[in-house]
Amino acid sequence: MSALDTVRAAEGLDAYLREVEARLDEVVARYPGLVAHVGRSALRAGGKRLRPALAFLSSPVDADPPLAGGVAVELVHMATLVHDDLIDGATVRRGHAAAWREHGPEAAKAAGDYLFACAFSILAEAGDPVLVSVLADAALSLARGEAMQRLQRHDPDTTIDAYLERCALKTGKLFEAACIFGGGSAEYGLNLGIAFQIADDVLDCAGETIETGKVPGTDLREGTPTLPLLLAAREDEVVRAALAGGPKDGVLVRVAATGALERSREMALLYASKARAGLDGAERRAELEALAEAVVERSF
Amino acid sequence: MSALDTVRAAEGLDAYLREVEARLDEVVARYPGLVAHVGRSALRAGGKRLRPALAFLSSPVDADPPLAGGVAVELVHMATLVHDDLIDGATVRRGHAAAWREHGPEAAKAAGDYLFACAFSILAEAGDPVLVSVLADAALSLARGEAMQRLQRHDPDTTIDAYLERCALKTGKLFEAACIFGGGSAEYGLNLGIAFQIADDVLDCAGETIETGKVPGTDLREGTPTLPLLLAAREDEVVRAALAGGPKDGVLVRVAATGALERSREMALLYASKARAGLDGAERRAELEALAEAVVERSF
Repeated sequence: MSALDTVRAAEGLDAYLREVEARLDEVVARYPGLVAHVGRSALRAGGKRLRPALAFLSSPVDADPPLAGGVAVELVHMATLVHDDLIDGATVRRGHAAAWREHGPEAAKAAGDYLFACAFSILAEAGDPVLVSVLADAALSLARGEAMQRLQRHDPDTTIDAYLERCALKTGKLFEAACIFGGGSAEYGLNLGIAFQIADDVLDCAGETIETGKVPGTDLREGTPTLPLLLAAREDEVVRAALAGGPKDGVLVRVAATGALERSREMALLYASKARAGLDGAERRAELEALAEAVVERSF
Repeated sequence: MSALDTVRAAEGLDAYLREVEARLDEVVARYPGLVAHVGRSALRAGGKRLRPALAFLSSPVDADPPLAGGVAVELVHMATLVHDDLIDGATVRRGHAAAWREHGPEAAKAAGDYLFACAFSILAEAGDPVLVSVLADAALSLARGEAMQRLQRHDPDTTIDAYLERCALKTGKLFEAACIFGGGSAEYGLNLGIAFQIADDVLDCAGETIETGKVPGTDLREGTPTLPLLLAAREDEVVRAALAGGPKDGVLVRVAATGALERSREMALLYASKARAGLDGAERRAELEALAEAVVERSF
């Protein structure tokens, strides 16, 4: 049985994810019009529901699964996807515009803000201010991670520590929130998120088609210093110059030639191990360990 | 004594607004870099602190003033200003770019999201999930109001009711939240916000220089159907065509000639009266009545 199969076989997960999906559908369809239109495309784009699954797997076997928390983390993730498209639309118009782009940046802004506010609304209804604080903290971290990414752009001297901090802020903290919503290990969630982000950055450099629809090579084109690009830039002046804004032709092949992809994968595995080390006492330990494996393989 | 002087003379208001200001400064400066840079420009842009003042004036005289609530509503307002600049930057590059625009749309997105998340964070710390629900509801309404504005663009057949609903969503609900945070009248806040928005829309058409720095005539240029434009479009085919996307030269003079500005001001006064009618039992009734007057005059 593959790691992914082990995760998917978790009892109750399917039913939980169907409930989450129904709730997301309901939220998006609540106000027909622009928000519903853009929301539907975001619903389709983030199809794996990894964050709600994490909330479920972090929860005790005999307790009610954390429905409001799972829906809230996915809504924040969807809001990010919608706003990212807004930014992309404002800076580089890609060849294949998403359906909603016909409505312009206001639509993306309004729909993203709507999904974001919905996340807080649903969590506040659940009545626990501590959980609202956790989500607010994750949302703050997301914004800080994005600001950091902007400041690190085209800087081949970005340190590995600064890169890892960015991964924690941009990705780790929302994974962490999902685990906390389930009553599970914050340490597992944070490290799993970092491992996930590193694996994502490797895929982008490896030039593979990614299921999220992201075009490979985006990080290099945009000058985002990811781990494989930073490691390769230390070995190869041409990669370094490309990351700093110079010509990009043939550079991904040179990145691969430095061995930076393998070394980055090792770092992802290291964070997956750190994640697993935080699992003492978890009731669904086997599934969470398998998830850590699946995330690094990017099979989930 | 003018209405504005009556409002400003409210005992404790100055000290409260200084506390709000200190807290806003602290939030914006917390993470030096992009967020702080963009945040500072938003701090300067929305200088009147009308929403926190509303929270204060809605609170009982002998109770602690609603600091977290006042800060939270202002942060949501600031986030809106930052994101609006993002949208403006993405669609029409104005002559005088704000200082932060050098950092591009990512900076505005990250800083706006940061301020937005801060609002929820500060309110969640205060520990009352009902207040978080109120803020989330206001934020949802803001997003819906913006989506509605996008859909109504260039439509001279927008009904007055649809326009008023947009004002309630875009402006009224955050005013309402401020009043609720103070323990005051939701009805007062909602109607005051609608009055404020109508007065703002009249100023834009009247071609006066507005202290917020908004360039007069923006609504007509962008095809946003405001009350004065809608009323004038019913009387004058040239105004109607301009609102639908046609030539705009000399159109504001024609709008004024139809008497639409006076009739819109009357509508603002009507909503200010509705606001005052919600003030039974308010301890700072005189100040809140004066505020309703000042808002329509736009002296606050």
